[in-house]
Amino acid sequence: MAHEEHRARGQRVARFYIVTVSTSRYREKAEGRTPVDESGDLAERMAREAGHQVVGRDLIPDDLHLIRSKILELAAREDVDVVVFTGGTGLTKTDVTIEAVRPLFEKEMEGFGDVFRYYSIQEVGTAAFLTRATGGVVGGKAVFLLPGSPNAVKVGMRIILDEVSHLLYLVK
Amino acid sequence: MAHEEHRARGQRVARFYIVTVSTSRYREKAEGRTPVDESGDLAERMAREAGHQVVGRDLIPDDLHLIRSKILELAAREDVDVVVFTGGTGLTKTDVTIEAVRPLFEKEMEGFGDVFRYYSIQEVGTAAFLTRATGGVVGGKAVFLLPGSPNAVKVGMRIILDEVSHLLYLVK
Amino acid sequence: MAHEEHRARGQRVARFYIVTVSTSRYREKAEGRTPVDESGDLAERMAREAGHQVVGRDLIPDDLHLIRSKILELAAREDVDVVVFTGGTGLTKTDVTIEAVRPLFEKEMEGFGDVFRYYSIQEVGTAAFLTRATGGVVGGKAVFLLPGSPNAVKVGMRIILDEVSHLLYLVK
Amino acid sequence: MAHEEHRARGQRVARFYIVTVSTSRYREKAEGRTPVDESGDLAERMAREAGHQVVGRDLIPDDLHLIRSKILELAAREDVDVVVFTGGTGLTKTDVTIEAVRPLFEKEMEGFGDVFRYYSIQEVGTAAFLTRATGGVVGGKAVFLLPGSPNAVKVGMRIILDEVSHLLYLVK
Amino acid sequence: MAHEEHRARGQRVARFYIVTVSTSRYREKAEGRTPVDESGDLAERMAREAGHQVVGRDLIPDDLHLIRSKILELAAREDVDVVVFTGGTGLTKTDVTIEAVRPLFEKEMEGFGDVFRYYSIQEVGTAAFLTRATGGVVGGKAVFLLPGSPNAVKVGMRIILDEVSHLLYLVK
Amino acid sequence: MAHEEHRARGQRVARFYIVTVSTSRYREKAEGRTPVDESGDLAERMAREAGHQVVGRDLIPDDLHLIRSKILELAAREDVDVVVFTGGTGLTKTDVTIEAVRPLFEKEMEGFGDVFRYYSIQEVGTAAFLTRATGGVVGGKAVFLLPGSPNAVKVGMRIILDEVSHLLYLVK
Repeated sequence: MAHEEHRARGQRVARFYIVTVSTSRYREKAEGRTPVDESGDLAERMAREAGHQVVGRDLIPDDLHLIRSKILELAAREDVDVVVFTGGTGLTKTDVTIEAVRPLFEKEMEGFGDVFRYYSIQEVGTAAFLTRATGGVVGGKAVFLLPGSPNAVKVGMRIILDEVSHLLYLVK
Repeated sequence: MAHEEHRARGQRVARFYIVTVSTSRYREKAEGRTPVDESGDLAERMAREAGHQVVGRDLIPDDLHLIRSKILELAAREDVDVVVFTGGTGLTKTDVTIEAVRPLFEKEMEGFGDVFRYYSIQEVGTAAFLTRATGGVVGGKAVFLLPGSPNAVKVGMRIILDEVSHLLYLVK
Repeated sequence: MAHEEHRARGQRVARFYIVTVSTSRYREKAEGRTPVDESGDLAERMAREAGHQVVGRDLIPDDLHLIRSKILELAAREDVDVVVFTGGTGLTKTDVTIEAVRPLFEKEMEGFGDVFRYYSIQEVGTAAFLTRATGGVVGGKAVFLLPGSPNAVKVGMRIILDEVSHLLYLVK
Repeated sequence: MAHEEHRARGQRVARFYIVTVSTSRYREKAEGRTPVDESGDLAERMAREAGHQVVGRDLIPDDLHLIRSKILELAAREDVDVVVFTGGTGLTKTDVTIEAVRPLFEKEMEGFGDVFRYYSIQEVGTAAFLTRATGGVVGGKAVFLLPGSPNAVKVGMRIILDEVSHLLYLVK
Repeated sequence: MAHEEHRARGQRVARFYIVTVSTSRYREKAEGRTPVDESGDLAERMAREAGHQVVGRDLIPDDLHLIRSKILELAAREDVDVVVFTGGTGLTKTDVTIEAVRPLFEKEMEGFGDVFRYYSIQEVGTAAFLTRATGGVVGGKAVFLLPGSPNAVKVGMRIILDEVSHLLYLVK
Repeated sequence: MAHEEHRARGQRVARFYIVTVSTSRYREKAEGRTPVDESGDLAERMAREAGHQVVGRDLIPDDLHLIRSKILELAAREDVDVVVFTGGTGLTKTDVTIEAVRPLFEKEMEGFGDVFRYYSIQEVGTAAFLTRATGGVVGGKAVFLLPGSPNAVKVGMRIILDEVSHLLYLVK
């Protein structure tokens, strides 16, 4: 649904901010190359096609402090409603997105991981258990932590976009 | 299944206590009006129609201490097997039912939220992720925390009622 | 898939260690009898039939310290990739497998319980909420905690075996 | 300082409630005997001699739920300012006073244990490390958990009484 | 000891950043007045007189998110060694400095509160138990949370300044 | 006091096990050299001179899993009463003794750190705040975690030895 339609129907247009967490892509960028960020691009496109705004994008490395600083910086902005992180949610030691953000949740959307995996099972079967994903509230913003694969972003963004109007009403 | 049938078949009749958590309804009651408590009524009716007893009902506001006092008072009663709270499980700051009760769980039924959302997805689709629900054991009682909407109570009570005999055996 | 086929196809053969947690069976064994360990046998058979190795089996009682010692002993072994505990995950006070192992997880596979219950619902319906199951990483090993019933072991082992190659790659 | 003097000087008279936690004394009482409760008596006497009121006393066994119920019941009373528990703070498995109350603290007075041990060292030397003591805020009440020995109660009550006016101002 | 002497003796000059947490002073400033910040001034003067640098000062309100953002912003700066917060460590609901920063500590200096209270007892006696103070490591920086009173700042800064060289060596 | 005197006076002889945690000394040993372990030697000598037994010594590197395995192995031994770890309690990332053992404490002796620092202040002044030390109960054994410096071991062992008879009575 396009932006204008949303307005026409009186539905709320949400302002998204999308953060890709990836040390390898961050390095590419630091070296002057243009990293391919398929997942971040997909999240942005899906948000826009559903009639919402994307007010910013970022690419940061898998670093606990930089992730925390980013989420707190965004929590303080008045022009952001929903923050989506993609990447760094896996099981290796270098994956720290969930560890960085979870202690900052005022409330955790405990069901987001469940519902995310329910739909992931339809896509990838049992492999769904290898992914971690969650959501929560930080400073009146809805914050989601999605795995870095485009498939996971597709599943996660669909769930978020389906409920975004309801969500904004609930977390304020 | 009716109460008498349960006894005839040797199945255990469980004694439920149902607590509605709602500041707005509590105020109505305090002001002398009779609040409509659709969710509490539904939980009671479902328990009775399944052949169980409802030994008590309460209506309390969204207050951390009052919720804790209530659960501990019920945990000490010898005539209660299952406690169902409905309401106060959402994502806003005033929702404190889960925050109040979870630290008192001796064991959390970690799967209750999962199974609850599995069936919620069939009813409300992706919106299921916006609800929080859980269960646990307090003093040999099975305690459940359900959202306040009649739909959620219906889904939650069905799951509980399906397994109540098994459950009572497990938590003692 | 047989062991040789795995090798032929270049797939990784995983080395499993299976621990049955059961005070009653432990006592039988201590008294010189040979306890029937249907769940441990099933886990072993499923792992072997999928072409993997089972490098060891154990039977220990529901004792917090013995369970912790066992997991740490196995975490230090170089010839073990996956550890499966079966038993002691229920809701009674004597069930301590999850309590013993969870604090030792470096990362918890938060989705394992979800996916386990998703498939359990297909087998046992709502009763799935009465089981607890989880997985995590301890010292570069994938560790799973399954309920003690053969049904639960069957569901859990299927999920694990489906993803074991991927898993070993992820937790190292 | 006597009650009247307090009033004359415009100092706040605090309303204490003292709870003795002791399974053995509780049993004596249940059997119709009159248990000697030297520590509870001492706490009461010290509070009164300092010009404060003691609005109630209780004797409860070392039971997690009964202790929690008691603290929540007192937290809801409007005529109580300070709650003092004595007993059940030791290192054995049956000592559960701290385990029962700590999760209910809205803020813990992290320094109370320190200051308590500082003064205990003057009385009992190194043995001070064997005691646990703490304080916190529950529902606008100052709550203290002291060991069960008269010596410990004397040390703890002195610290509390010295600062009670300041304290009441701080926790409201 | 002056800055130059430090250098002459080969001792490390530490770079301090001092943050005053006070909603009332923040408001005064927002209204265009110049708030008196006795504690922040004292911390700065003590650091300078001991031969260290103060690379920045801030005044922020008692707000969980602003405090967290500030600490993370400072953790990322390369020109800061020691961060001192003063204020917001008390027992009322509006005091959130410790709640904001503690979850971000990689290691807590568990003994700082003890040693702080040891010296506070010499200054204010038993009242020491009413204060909370702690320290920890965030991103290779030593971070201290002191009460807002000038007395507390004096005690806390003395302890910090005595050990600052040792400290910088330990936390890196 | 000598071993025989203890017995003659009917005092309990405690059985100590001392573990030195030090990666650098562990490497020396692995390379065939004989590392100097002044702190472990001091702890052993102090225990023996006080009339107690030292039933074992170990030298392990700063490794979370090896420390945990060691404490659990010792917790299961019937011939050990008190376990003393020395080393690895500092503030750097490689210091993990407290992180390894604390989650395994059934009860923490919260006052041990306080009393340890009280006496450390007499020896080293404010520097006491830079040390971490604690104690707790694991499987009916008293377990202490002391810093690695001989000074700290001297202070810690004095406190432990003063109260060891009392302690053994309390933790069983």
